[in-house]
Amino acid sequence: MEDNVVSRSGQHHLPRRNLLAAAGVLGLTAGAVTVATTTKSQPARAAAGVIKKVTVYAEALPGGLLGYGLAPGTATIPGPILEMYEGDTLEITLVNTTTQRLSIHPHGVDYSTGSDGAPLNASFNEPGETRTYVWRSHEMTATAGRRFMPGSAGYWHYHDHANGTDHGTGGLNKGLYGALVVRRRGDILPDKQFTVVFMDMMINHKVAPDTPMFEADLGQRTEWIAIGHGNLFHTFHLHAHRWADNRTGMLEGPSDPSLVIDNKDLNPGSSFGFQVLAGEAVGPGAWMYHCHVQLHSDTGMSGLFLVRNADGTMPAGAQEAIDRFRGHQHKAAATAKAQAHVHGGTGS
Amino acid sequence: MEDNVVSRSGQHHLPRRNLLAAAGVLGLTAGAVTVATTTKSQPARAAAGVIKKVTVYAEALPGGLLGYGLAPGTATIPGPILEMYEGDTLEITLVNTTTQRLSIHPHGVDYSTGSDGAPLNASFNEPGETRTYVWRSHEMTATAGRRFMPGSAGYWHYHDHANGTDHGTGGLNKGLYGALVVRRRGDILPDKQFTVVFMDMMINHKVAPDTPMFEADLGQRTEWIAIGHGNLFHTFHLHAHRWADNRTGMLEGPSDPSLVIDNKDLNPGSSFGFQVLAGEAVGPGAWMYHCHVQLHSDTGMSGLFLVRNADGTMPAGAQEAIDRFRGHQHKAAATAKAQAHVHGGTGS
Amino acid sequence: MEDNVVSRSGQHHLPRRNLLAAAGVLGLTAGAVTVATTTKSQPARAAAGVIKKVTVYAEALPGGLLGYGLAPGTATIPGPILEMYEGDTLEITLVNTTTQRLSIHPHGVDYSTGSDGAPLNASFNEPGETRTYVWRSHEMTATAGRRFMPGSAGYWHYHDHANGTDHGTGGLNKGLYGALVVRRRGDILPDKQFTVVFMDMMINHKVAPDTPMFEADLGQRTEWIAIGHGNLFHTFHLHAHRWADNRTGMLEGPSDPSLVIDNKDLNPGSSFGFQVLAGEAVGPGAWMYHCHVQLHSDTGMSGLFLVRNADGTMPAGAQEAIDRFRGHQHKAAATAKAQAHVHGGTGS
Repeated sequence: MEDNVVSRSGQHHLPRRNLLAAAGVLGLTAGAVTVATTTKSQPARAAAGVIKKVTVYAEALPGGLLGYGLAPGTATIPGPILEMYEGDTLEITLVNTTTQRLSIHPHGVDYSTGSDGAPLNASFNEPGETRTYVWRSHEMTATAGRRFMPGSAGYWHYHDHANGTDHGTGGLNKGLYGALVVRRRGDILPDKQFTVVFMDMMINHKVAPDTPMFEADLGQRTEWIAIGHGNLFHTFHLHAHRWADNRTGMLEGPSDPSLVIDNKDLNPGSSFGFQVLAGEAVGPGAWMYHCHVQLHSDTGMSGLFLVRNADGTMPAGAQEAIDRFRGHQHKAAATAKAQAHVHGGTGS
Repeated sequence: MEDNVVSRSGQHHLPRRNLLAAAGVLGLTAGAVTVATTTKSQPARAAAGVIKKVTVYAEALPGGLLGYGLAPGTATIPGPILEMYEGDTLEITLVNTTTQRLSIHPHGVDYSTGSDGAPLNASFNEPGETRTYVWRSHEMTATAGRRFMPGSAGYWHYHDHANGTDHGTGGLNKGLYGALVVRRRGDILPDKQFTVVFMDMMINHKVAPDTPMFEADLGQRTEWIAIGHGNLFHTFHLHAHRWADNRTGMLEGPSDPSLVIDNKDLNPGSSFGFQVLAGEAVGPGAWMYHCHVQLHSDTGMSGLFLVRNADGTMPAGAQEAIDRFRGHQHKAAATAKAQAHVHGGTGS
Repeated sequence: MEDNVVSRSGQHHLPRRNLLAAAGVLGLTAGAVTVATTTKSQPARAAAGVIKKVTVYAEALPGGLLGYGLAPGTATIPGPILEMYEGDTLEITLVNTTTQRLSIHPHGVDYSTGSDGAPLNASFNEPGETRTYVWRSHEMTATAGRRFMPGSAGYWHYHDHANGTDHGTGGLNKGLYGALVVRRRGDILPDKQFTVVFMDMMINHKVAPDTPMFEADLGQRTEWIAIGHGNLFHTFHLHAHRWADNRTGMLEGPSDPSLVIDNKDLNPGSSFGFQVLAGEAVGPGAWMYHCHVQLHSDTGMSGLFLVRNADGTMPAGAQEAIDRFRGHQHKAAATAKAQAHVHGGTGS
């Protein structure tokens, strides 16, 4: 049941369902109870929030790296995609199996100081320690002037905030980061999900040609969650697909003024997400995604989005493109840092 | 009266009032008259603009710094928050008490070339000179196709554009910058306002632990005005709070497609603002705001947002967090540049 | 006829027309036929798309530079503004008159792998080779939950993706880039168009005072298309004018939540556009546009927007401002790289 809401990287995909089915998608654990949101104002509509208990393991990985996983021995870089609906609560029990101080700090959701994940608030795991962090969420709430204080829905992320420095720089450098999705009830669910983290000169801690190849069949609804970390500025570009620069990546209708883009700044601490229909209006093939800072793409911040034919077969020319990608020279391919034996990103 | 619209840094706070009371908030000076906006098209609705006369003093501060203030001897870095409603005019009489050429250049509002503040248009104060700059504003105006040319409302800023170089680089480096808020009639007024300027490796010309600690009681409506300057890229992150990435930081309702964020690019010349209810959905405590570029946060671009209990008392654990913040090592704490004896930012 | 839709840099300006006249603006070539869009879902409304055939010449320019042009011997940096309406197709026949491998890769529009312009998909022109790239476009399409997958409308751009490196870094460094505008039917057409490309420390491959001076008469509707390239981060600032940070730069009405800005990040691979009425609410004069990163503006990333009087005469003080601009010291004026004898940008 737990995997329905907190999917392992690329192993479980949320089925596409409509609003009415949403509660069923969440799945209630044995101990879950319906909770009211803690916002001070009246929620715009009643939230049928659930409490979801999840155990996360912080583990050492080869090459001096660290990762988060949902079971012992399964840590990945990036970590698993965590999901909730507005109104839900995630109780994250973080098991620190390493010999280092670390934590888990979320963006976007609600937490008290004890769940901040920051040394400032004495919120972290000592080596070997197990600690529970509580992430709540809420729907938008009406305020004065016919305006609404925003709810928690968004394409967020989580990361260490205690390893190496008080801002978690060591933990980030070692791989302690992942995606956190908070949906509004009624949001369209994807067929597939991909996490893409741009950090320093790497994608998901790898450089081309070892960056993840994300795959989908023509027409599948794919959800991309893009996260920035580190010290450099980046721009995320996806070939042959485009999205609205708003909360969902889709338009609300002709009067939705949102920019439509295919390239977006992806800087440290920021994240965004969108859904595209694989190959919509362009057809199948091997499409590049890459950082559009030229030096970065030239030295390895590039990967492939393989859109297969609708029946799952390989489209003409795609294998040749993949071979070219794997064979062509990336100046940074020698960068040993990212070559460690790590599970390969969050796509499938 | 003047202080009602042009508040000294953190000393006067705009009371929360509704639309009908807005004209009263502005306060008319003796010489003020109601002016029509100068836009060429018809305004969407009649603007009851006022002319507001303000004297600003540019002064030398210890350590070779410069600041703007609303009375002699009161200059701060950043300068005072200047405010107006769409349709209003601010007549800024800038008294240059220094021995250097300088100016005041606004973003967002309307000005003729003589008030550009740029040497290009011979618009600056010689040493010791007094000069008046006129900043007008206007409401949105209907144009073809049921669209509207935007009005002036926004979270803007002002800065020197003549000191050191023709782009005011010297003045910025010395501290000549501040926030400018243009409201649309009906906008919700805050209880408290904070200006946060990210520039080079500093916040409001300081590095941690000397960065401003902004304070509010649980539930107070706080308004943050974030401004970027200098030569580096930054991302502004606030713990445990979030806002809509639009004009007000709030949603217009369920069909408002705006992204909800807690981390945003804050690069030179850009500014944005938002309102959050202190501790909404998370409770009181000491919450960090910081640049999310890891090297920047690790070396001093970090500060505290202290959310007190609703009755103004200190929440449990907050003093310990403050003590940790002040005591913990910030590599850049040795940076002498920002240690000068300057009034401490724009928060209270 | 062709020039109506594919205007040479600053030589042809689209007349301001309403929706009903839009089809006439496009102009049908002899071989053009009405095509249905290729999107899988139902378009929101019927698209009367046309196929437009355009020949583009990639040519060597003095100083080792390269440019795109619409006729032999007319290449410019940036290249010509290419335009289409949602639903239209552009068939770009690229004639490579150079001795180097190169291509043309668009952002925002629809193309199959053969028109990707990337070596990954074997999509490029060998030296001397002529090759046709097909760029399609589509309107928004309804999807689940009353949402719409975005259409192609946007202020996009095109650039080489095969010269120097597999990401076209060599081609970009030499000048192979330009603007691509896809309009939604009913969009307001401008009187004048300007392309502004921020790349490394240059604007349109030039440094001040040789950067383009864009000109318009007071009240003319000017369209700015801003594009970022290269390896550095930039922020685009325009004095005395402002726009909505959305698809058109204008507001849909009072409930449009868009930010209104006058400064925006302009990073590699990104583009945006907006329309301003020249001198609206501020009057005529010489107004600066520049990168707001201080070091960048100080060393030459600055130019002029000359707003003439409504009758086309020179406003008071403007010539003096221009003279100051041309005379004042720009540290980077010695940068030989950008001094080559290239046609001067895309404004008039």
